[in-house]
Amino acid sequence: VLVDLDRDLPLPLSVQLATQLSDAIRRGSLREGATLPASRTLALQLGVSRGVVTAAYSQLSTQGYLVMQQRSVPRVAALPSTAPSTEREEAAPTPLVDFTMLSPDLGLVPRRDWRRVLEHAIRVSPAQVLDYGDPRGQLELREALVDFLGRTRGVVSSPSRVIVCQGSLQSLDIACQLLASRGAARVALEDPCAAEIRTAVRRAGLRPVQIPVDAEGIRVDLLAAEAPDAALLTPAHQFPTGSVLSERRRADLVDWLVRTGAQLVEDDYDAEFRYGTPAVPTLQEKAPDRVMYAGSASKTFAPGLRLGWLVVPESAADAAGRIKWSLDGGSPGLEQVAFARLVTSGAFERHLLRARVEYRKRREALEAALAGALPRTRVEGGTGGLHLTLRLDRPVDIGALDAAASRQRVRVQAVESFLHEPAKRAERLVLGFARLHPSSSAHAAASLATVLQLAGGA
Amino acid sequence: VLVDLDRDLPLPLSVQLATQLSDAIRRGSLREGATLPASRTLALQLGVSRGVVTAAYSQLSTQGYLVMQQRSVPRVAALPSTAPSTEREEAAPTPLVDFTMLSPDLGLVPRRDWRRVLEHAIRVSPAQVLDYGDPRGQLELREALVDFLGRTRGVVSSPSRVIVCQGSLQSLDIACQLLASRGAARVALEDPCAAEIRTAVRRAGLRPVQIPVDAEGIRVDLLAAEAPDAALLTPAHQFPTGSVLSERRRADLVDWLVRTGAQLVEDDYDAEFRYGTPAVPTLQEKAPDRVMYAGSASKTFAPGLRLGWLVVPESAADAAGRIKWSLDGGSPGLEQVAFARLVTSGAFERHLLRARVEYRKRREALEAALAGALPRTRVEGGTGGLHLTLRLDRPVDIGALDAAASRQRVRVQAVESFLHEPAKRAERLVLGFARLHPSSSAHAAASLATVLQLAGGA
Repeated sequence: VLVDLDRDLPLPLSVQLATQLSDAIRRGSLREGATLPASRTLALQLGVSRGVVTAAYSQLSTQGYLVMQQRSVPRVAALPSTAPSTEREEAAPTPLVDFTMLSPDLGLVPRRDWRRVLEHAIRVSPAQVLDYGDPRGQLELREALVDFLGRTRGVVSSPSRVIVCQGSLQSLDIACQLLASRGAARVALEDPCAAEIRTAVRRAGLRPVQIPVDAEGIRVDLLAAEAPDAALLTPAHQFPTGSVLSERRRADLVDWLVRTGAQLVEDDYDAEFRYGTPAVPTLQEKAPDRVMYAGSASKTFAPGLRLGWLVVPESAADAAGRIKWSLDGGSPGLEQVAFARLVTSGAFERHLLRARVEYRKRREALEAALAGALPRTRVEGGTGGLHLTLRLDRPVDIGALDAAASRQRVRVQAVESFLHEPAKRAERLVLGFARLHPSSSAHAAASLATVLQLAGGA
Repeated sequence: VLVDLDRDLPLPLSVQLATQLSDAIRRGSLREGATLPASRTLALQLGVSRGVVTAAYSQLSTQGYLVMQQRSVPRVAALPSTAPSTEREEAAPTPLVDFTMLSPDLGLVPRRDWRRVLEHAIRVSPAQVLDYGDPRGQLELREALVDFLGRTRGVVSSPSRVIVCQGSLQSLDIACQLLASRGAARVALEDPCAAEIRTAVRRAGLRPVQIPVDAEGIRVDLLAAEAPDAALLTPAHQFPTGSVLSERRRADLVDWLVRTGAQLVEDDYDAEFRYGTPAVPTLQEKAPDRVMYAGSASKTFAPGLRLGWLVVPESAADAAGRIKWSLDGGSPGLEQVAFARLVTSGAFERHLLRARVEYRKRREALEAALAGALPRTRVEGGTGGLHLTLRLDRPVDIGALDAAASRQRVRVQAVESFLHEPAKRAERLVLGFARLHPSSSAHAAASLATVLQLAGGA
């Protein structure tokens, strides 16, 4: 018997079903390509309502375990290679609630649109798409990005200044190499920030200068006082704290750039998603000759495209192209041609519109559920992106938090673990909500409450 | 952010919108030809009535900022005084004969096969191909490569040891990062070698040790005497000299690896092409725990795929995956799935067979033509790959060679320009023949003879 649901457990039946199915898939009892019963059939077999089965199937499809297609029964997908790290903790069971997922719900990706533009790209691309090309990328994508970024983010650019990269990870790597090649030595970073940023800075031989972040974003006064050669920031939605750089500090930062001739790398990693609050303008728009602007399709469309971009000042365009060439000879052409068409056809912005509505719902559902389950906690930061930041009512030991989370099959990270010198105690949590369906918010928040209780906090 | 409407201002929203859009057009954030959202879409985005947007669009159209056409979205019109285009500087005239092309003839690529496997990949790939995956690459491609490299090159591996890279440029970059992370400091390089290799070594913070190359490949005796921590070599077909590492030196090199615990990066960039001579075995086969093996599809299929691979010792597999993750988050999935099928279906090896026959013809035709036009020169090195090395009967000044070549619209490079300290005089030339049809060999050789005559050599 693969599935054994227990009505006495405090877990919703749909979550139990999804978990047992995903366990079976991971241990190989359900092999790739195996078909599952139609929801109506399985519901009858298990004696549950059809909604329980469809909710479980939809969760498994979101997590990549099942392939669901119109008019056919679900099939087991190729095994998900889950973690972005290579460590396959084969033993660790699938988390029941995963707050560490910061990437978009692939179920929302308009796969038919994507397939259509890809097939079009295959049909129309000349043989040169199989050759080495301009290492900065396919011209049609760079043109499409100039228009799109100008329209949606006010970015001032031209095709020659756009470098198509492998996701924003490579955009930041190239930006750091560029800073180094332009003579920068000390680079201010937000503390806390993503670990990958520290890696890119270190690899380029740059010396990081840690600047604290508060509710208004990075402390620009402290930054200016340190007089670094450059800064690498996430002004529109600081990762991981969620702070939005305040208007006063934005003005001070632009002033600092112009006054000192310093350079800024603006990592605009999730700015397309704002819910009910006005979009935060870019700094690049204010000082296009001092700012390298980095973005990607990883949050707005799908990370598997590995499409990112870097817009550099005209004076750095040539050097940026050379660095991209020396790193990997340029990105593959076909998906660039396809994505360009997705953008110019309007399909990309239609998707953004729909995704924004859905993510707003998910965020609001999670906020409401947290308010219910953890009434003394507080959501902080801007209302954008695919994660929110939760301030706990009292700190918990991070070791105890990890242990409790692991026991409850919850994955969650503290803001404090992103500090340059990771703290021992968590005061805030980073909660990714993009893959958290509103129907699971209550369960997710309740699980988190249990974890915090076990860990001795909240 | 382009548009920021303020309901408290005494200006009608449509006027605010029109003004902000025209400002964006005038300062270049919205370029000529850029499309704007349909009025319904923009109205939704801004939370205003559709009438506000249509009024603004119509005003901008009257003022000449927008082109409106039935059934299509508004486009930004050409500005009256066109801004200076940053693009398209007048390129140098196309060369008539280009010996610097070292990449394959795209006319030989079986595009129908490629299109078939791509369309198949689009059809069968589960949603996960759009997600982050194992940064080492799609499992099916790593499995296909294990079989293919084992069968054709004797490479000893397993899927967990294969890292799918962006061409061999990135394979070498990752190999150098790996060497550094494993404590290597001094790395022996062949002198001459490709400039990209020096860049990758330098970027990883490694110190290059230059070892000369002769007709039997790198001087292994001098290499061992320098006692570097590692070596990065092209043993099967040294670039650019074309030497094949002799059997005696291969044995000495393996002996050195095993005796000292040093590490080797084996760049096997064109080994699939051998014409009438037996394939040169890999060193990886002899010492799989000491060798990182790098290859790619850039010469055997098409560089535009940007598909390369690195096979690392088991003990380095995890670290290699982490480096790949930190560099770019992994390569895009779809083309990996397609290439895996190309390999497993046998279509790739059928292509290799056909390409080998054709490239052999081209090489032989060029050799014959050179023997006719430049009878005192001599072809050196192994008979593989996509280039040959021509020894001149007397040296020519490289400046004079470049000037004469440019006058004759010929592109050609001296072996000596790949030296660590580039020489002033050319004794050997690197002649790429993959894109030189046999019917053009005579003309190409005659042009080269003219260039050499003008340059004062031959």
